[in-house]
Amino acid sequence: MPDRHDVPAPRLATIVAAVAQGRSNPAAEIAAARARVAAGDAAIGAFLRLAPEESLAAAGAATGPLAGVAVGVKDIYDTRDMATEHGSPVYRDHRPVADASLVSMARLAGAAILGKTTTTEFASLDPTPTRNPRNLAHTPGGSSSGSAAAVAAGMVPLAFGSQTGGSVIRPASFCGVAAFKPSFRLLPTIGMKTFSYTLDTAGLFAATVADLAFAASAITGRDLSGERVRDDDASGLTVGVYRSAVDDAVEPMMHDAVAEAARLLEASGARLVTVEEPGALAEARDAHGTVQGYEAVLDLSDEFRNHRQRLGPKLGAILDQGATIAPAAYDEARRAARIGRKAASALFETVDVLIAPSALGPAPLTLESTGDALMNKLWTLTGNPVVNVAGIASAAGLPLGVSVVARFGRDALALSVATRLERLIDAPISQQK
Amino acid sequence: MPDRHDVPAPRLATIVAAVAQGRSNPAAEIAAARARVAAGDAAIGAFLRLAPEESLAAAGAATGPLAGVAVGVKDIYDTRDMATEHGSPVYRDHRPVADASLVSMARLAGAAILGKTTTTEFASLDPTPTRNPRNLAHTPGGSSSGSAAAVAAGMVPLAFGSQTGGSVIRPASFCGVAAFKPSFRLLPTIGMKTFSYTLDTAGLFAATVADLAFAASAITGRDLSGERVRDDDASGLTVGVYRSAVDDAVEPMMHDAVAEAARLLEASGARLVTVEEPGALAEARDAHGTVQGYEAVLDLSDEFRNHRQRLGPKLGAILDQGATIAPAAYDEARRAARIGRKAASALFETVDVLIAPSALGPAPLTLESTGDALMNKLWTLTGNPVVNVAGIASAAGLPLGVSVVARFGRDALALSVATRLERLIDAPISQQK
Repeated sequence: MPDRHDVPAPRLATIVAAVAQGRSNPAAEIAAARARVAAGDAAIGAFLRLAPEESLAAAGAATGPLAGVAVGVKDIYDTRDMATEHGSPVYRDHRPVADASLVSMARLAGAAILGKTTTTEFASLDPTPTRNPRNLAHTPGGSSSGSAAAVAAGMVPLAFGSQTGGSVIRPASFCGVAAFKPSFRLLPTIGMKTFSYTLDTAGLFAATVADLAFAASAITGRDLSGERVRDDDASGLTVGVYRSAVDDAVEPMMHDAVAEAARLLEASGARLVTVEEPGALAEARDAHGTVQGYEAVLDLSDEFRNHRQRLGPKLGAILDQGATIAPAAYDEARRAARIGRKAASALFETVDVLIAPSALGPAPLTLESTGDALMNKLWTLTGNPVVNVAGIASAAGLPLGVSVVARFGRDALALSVATRLERLIDAPISQQK
Repeated sequence: MPDRHDVPAPRLATIVAAVAQGRSNPAAEIAAARARVAAGDAAIGAFLRLAPEESLAAAGAATGPLAGVAVGVKDIYDTRDMATEHGSPVYRDHRPVADASLVSMARLAGAAILGKTTTTEFASLDPTPTRNPRNLAHTPGGSSSGSAAAVAAGMVPLAFGSQTGGSVIRPASFCGVAAFKPSFRLLPTIGMKTFSYTLDTAGLFAATVADLAFAASAITGRDLSGERVRDDDASGLTVGVYRSAVDDAVEPMMHDAVAEAARLLEASGARLVTVEEPGALAEARDAHGTVQGYEAVLDLSDEFRNHRQRLGPKLGAILDQGATIAPAAYDEARRAARIGRKAASALFETVDVLIAPSALGPAPLTLESTGDALMNKLWTLTGNPVVNVAGIASAAGLPLGVSVVARFGRDALALSVATRLERLIDAPISQQK
């Protein structure tokens, strides 16, 4: 079962512990990450550029919980020391004045911003040249293509992405890494290029969920690692297996992966229930495209007006279509989103978390598409926290990810259950209960 | 009664009509606005810089509903053809790649972006050198100081501001111009420098409310000019006179101005009721500072970390204080804001609009402070639309503005009632009913 265990590099927790105990130091860890990029990225194409020497030297002297942690940052986030091109020729060589808030906060926590990773143009759909480290003929997913691939290839222990439809959870599923799309606004999106201002959500990639929880806690100053589920026991937990209105589009092997996750949690003491998707959530999913398209035309107003012919074909088509959406249709879609958010909250009155497919199936055999966000866009619209758990199953060497979804604001619970699930995968059968 | 009638320049509606009827043309109107700035701004200091010749030449050939309308844009909004400094030495000579969405949308509607107006640093509290056109010894208010003053002095018929506490409605009240702080997110803030991401709201200034409604409709493609209230009659309308928990801080002459607005609306057929502030809204107002301070530290993370010593003293103090706010205290303040939003919506089950003071009193006699946002920050936090109506009353030549507040999303109603109120001020007594 090829999965995150393949990652040839030390995990975030290993690095942090080594630095804390004096067995390593930040400069050595940064140098090691640079060496991994130098050795591995020619085949993958995850990185666009690395930070200048002086930045990395400063990071080598940093202190804080993330000291020594090299981070790949999707090129949709402003960086003060590197160009930020948003995947678009319109921003060729653009150099921002300030770091995006998430980047700045990571530096404050001691992290080393190693370099910028590929993004589809303005985090939309036109693919980057990045390849899936699990199989180079397959897409790594998008729009956070480079960040997912950089972590999957073991080049960096942590990477930043963003999700407007399924741009964090889908590539994580395709590449077989853990990912965290937090509750809307838990991580700031200031200094991130906006595509759809009520949907854009910052997200994180790492080799394991435990690493994500540690990094998110260090960056935000919140404790996102604890809450409710002990490491060795899921008893007392009610897990809903989510049956969506679009499940027919999901490949059987992905349904099997979710079933396997359910089996592991049940064996560990959790109570399983099946949760049928309420009509309000099916309608909310249908509204996603209208919200996204209308807002994209506003958010990219300048680029659409002045650079339409320079934009990628898929992005251009989204904007052309978005420009035909009337304010009344947008308002109606926003109403459906509001109703959907309430319906999503109501689901968690009877379950602690939901589990669901992170994608329709494994990464498609193409570099011309980044795959489908159908399994992700509902939870982006509702703002619920989602964690992708890798390593549960795979198909012909390609990973299949399972989403753990929690109530809005219950990010710590989502991370906690996902950590538990991840440990159940690692554990010998005899220890699963 | 010195008020908006002093404005020496043609109003937006006059310009639009003249261009539409061929009695004028956009180039001539832009030239006239430039001449007014050249003649008047040395004494006021509203503008930082004017657009380059080629931009104004292009705008002179523009078509659309706002063709010929010269706009002053607060220097917190990105402009592709002019430096955007956010009122800070950190951004000296900074030149963005793209227009902010609001700027781009205005250009699409035919408007001429004439120049950039002063802003306090990052739209916070350290005053700009701008003076109040009604009395040069008094503050114009802030943070949208230049935009309010530019319209009050008749230099431009329309200007853009932003409000995080009271940065649109307060300077409009102090300068005696109409202003519109829409429902949260009705106007996009993309490309505006963020101070507090759940509070920052784009807003407009013009000589009259009717001009605001026309401009907002032209920019958004929505009809914000109609809804419910006919020009000549307020009957059927229930108007709540709002009594807040902090009304003791309001000067008697300002209470008198609100009473006069109530009298005018009642004489025109409206039913008046008194609305006592619910406890949840008093608590929401108290929560504003915590939300703003915590978010400002995230939003300005890079500037705070790397440029603390270059920041203005009031801004620096806000950030220093904000950095002491724990996530749990912020979460609690956000909960108070959510409860406040529901309480605000409930108020409008019994009234159509509320009227309230736009400021504590007239513009203070100082250039060292931009005044107090106490009357405004609640409605910024709740996201309700607010329109400042000028010309109702004044004190020693300084205007006193009255706020018309409507339910979230009922922007057209707020503008409509405010337009009605404005016409009642203009009307001879005999026509008031």
